[in-house]
Amino acid sequence: MERRTFITRTGLAGAIAATSAPAIVHAQTALRWRLASSFPKSLDTIFGAAEVFAKKVGELSGGKFLISVHAAGEIMPAFGVVDAVQNATVEIAHTAPYYFFGKDETFALGCAIPFGLNSRQMTAWMVEGNGLKLMREFYHQYNIVNFPGGNTGAQMGGWFRKEIKSLADMKGLKMRIGGFGGRVLERIGAVPQNIPGGDIYPALEKGTIDAAEWVGPYDDEKLGFVKVAKYYYYPGWWEGTGQGHNIMNLDKWNALPRHYQAAIEMASRDTFTWVTGKYDYVNPPALKRLLVAGAILKPFPQEVLEACYNAANEIYADLNKTNPHFNKMYTSLSAFRNESLAWMQVAELSYDSFMMRMRTRT
Amino acid sequence: MERRTFITRTGLAGAIAATSAPAIVHAQTALRWRLASSFPKSLDTIFGAAEVFAKKVGELSGGKFLISVHAAGEIMPAFGVVDAVQNATVEIAHTAPYYFFGKDETFALGCAIPFGLNSRQMTAWMVEGNGLKLMREFYHQYNIVNFPGGNTGAQMGGWFRKEIKSLADMKGLKMRIGGFGGRVLERIGAVPQNIPGGDIYPALEKGTIDAAEWVGPYDDEKLGFVKVAKYYYYPGWWEGTGQGHNIMNLDKWNALPRHYQAAIEMASRDTFTWVTGKYDYVNPPALKRLLVAGAILKPFPQEVLEACYNAANEIYADLNKTNPHFNKMYTSLSAFRNESLAWMQVAELSYDSFMMRMRTRT
Repeated sequence: MERRTFITRTGLAGAIAATSAPAIVHAQTALRWRLASSFPKSLDTIFGAAEVFAKKVGELSGGKFLISVHAAGEIMPAFGVVDAVQNATVEIAHTAPYYFFGKDETFALGCAIPFGLNSRQMTAWMVEGNGLKLMREFYHQYNIVNFPGGNTGAQMGGWFRKEIKSLADMKGLKMRIGGFGGRVLERIGAVPQNIPGGDIYPALEKGTIDAAEWVGPYDDEKLGFVKVAKYYYYPGWWEGTGQGHNIMNLDKWNALPRHYQAAIEMASRDTFTWVTGKYDYVNPPALKRLLVAGAILKPFPQEVLEACYNAANEIYADLNKTNPHFNKMYTSLSAFRNESLAWMQVAELSYDSFMMRMRTRT
Repeated sequence: MERRTFITRTGLAGAIAATSAPAIVHAQTALRWRLASSFPKSLDTIFGAAEVFAKKVGELSGGKFLISVHAAGEIMPAFGVVDAVQNATVEIAHTAPYYFFGKDETFALGCAIPFGLNSRQMTAWMVEGNGLKLMREFYHQYNIVNFPGGNTGAQMGGWFRKEIKSLADMKGLKMRIGGFGGRVLERIGAVPQNIPGGDIYPALEKGTIDAAEWVGPYDDEKLGFVKVAKYYYYPGWWEGTGQGHNIMNLDKWNALPRHYQAAIEMASRDTFTWVTGKYDYVNPPALKRLLVAGAILKPFPQEVLEACYNAANEIYADLNKTNPHFNKMYTSLSAFRNESLAWMQVAELSYDSFMMRMRTRT
């Protein structure tokens, strides 16, 4: 076979033409991992992130490093994934770490806390600030290494059966909301409820609960809340963004060849971009459809937001005294947040506000 | 050598332990490419993006696919990179495609146009919308394939020697501004000037020009404008975000093994996240330092913004009649932008605004 024919047949014409170095054979190790997701398949963006991630790792390794993706409940419950990764029952999981704030509130800081970071701020704090570094110090005690895997953007404040006109309307209000947000609501006299996604609709319909938050227009629409609770509040102050993470057993990670570690890192970055990109693309038409279906958009009254803001800060002040990990990370997060807000309100907010104003005129 | 020793020495213990499949040897092709950047090394974020990209491609390929990065002027001028990639003088370049809007205005649509997308919208339109698909159709005629490689976020409106109080103050104003923004300014009676970065300071100092835009606080600070033009305006309406691209010769791309294509794609995604993350992290302290140095922050008067907005829309209406590529892409971009603005002003803007308000109180 002449050289030209060989090159063409192997499809490496350009590759070889571009260099004078000979082709070198390098070992690619065949590897199979299992990924446990904390999300149901119905959340096609958040659950889908793990599928996108696994696909990319496969492509980067020439099909040698294969990760099978399992929805919540398939090989373990949604909230079993931290223990499972710690014990190497699975090598890797995809989760929203604030689910584990009962273990330690610090988990929530890399995911979402009330009145925390927005998605641009979260990215900056993770990528260039101390966020990822501090988060990894924390995860190290669980024998876990973590990679940010996507932000939802600011979420909605949920569906309410009755209009909220004042802080007084929040007293005794039974609301489906998890974790940190619920703890803040308790302080202003509301009654947080933990209810799995599938049980929210009947509870709202019967009036067992008065309100429920889920994610944003695209995910909320699927659960049909607009039919039983028309007031759709904003913003979801407990989730200025929600950041998913890929968490891995540290021993499994350390044993990976360097270019497979790079594949994990890069594929996580890919999903990171994809999750926000997809939410930002599918939420606008979903919101339009919800409005057509009868949703009544309402901002939370300023006094409700301020009471919750103050309650959250009280909780953080307490935690800073009792939880050194939380204190270290929260100090870093809040300092960056405040500095960032001062800059973001200049060019970014003024640009967006002007564009929003002009849109309604044309 | 017993098996255990061999495994430890090759560093593959965990990799092999995690799977029962045997290790398979897979070809990694040694490859060297040259990347021409349109940016000087002094722009350590935008230029740095190409360095981060090349490093990641190296890691993903186990050090076999090496890309050397060359600053503007090193192997070709900043604005020679599209021709060079088209002719395969270099395999790949990193640039801000709006530099080439003189060739065809369509180049600017994937990078920045006046009153175009913000960075979240640009990402969504690229990743999930038609942006990247349409951009690639356009680039195909140049024998180029493109990958988004990072957004700056909303830029600043530049440095002015005198305060701008009304639209009348813009008449005859000589401003250093390139491309599309300059064409809009012409329509409202200003006089755009093309001046390379290094020559702006003396021109501002002597009064040869009245104003100059560059990027944002972090990059602007390095050129020292605050010493000669104190009024620092916002927002940079010609650049709600500026998106860099990696552009590649299509034949070189097609000849790459699939996992090297994936490496290019994933490393581009990595820089994509890194660029915005870094700018968002370094701009806030830079703005603070500029204020200490005497910068006077000013929003453009509403009538100036509106006149520019209307002028830009007139230009787009003309281009839509004469440039079919532009028309196709602009139609897609503006439809998504308007739908997105309606959603972004709900949860995202209300969250950010509230946080900005509370920051100044505590």
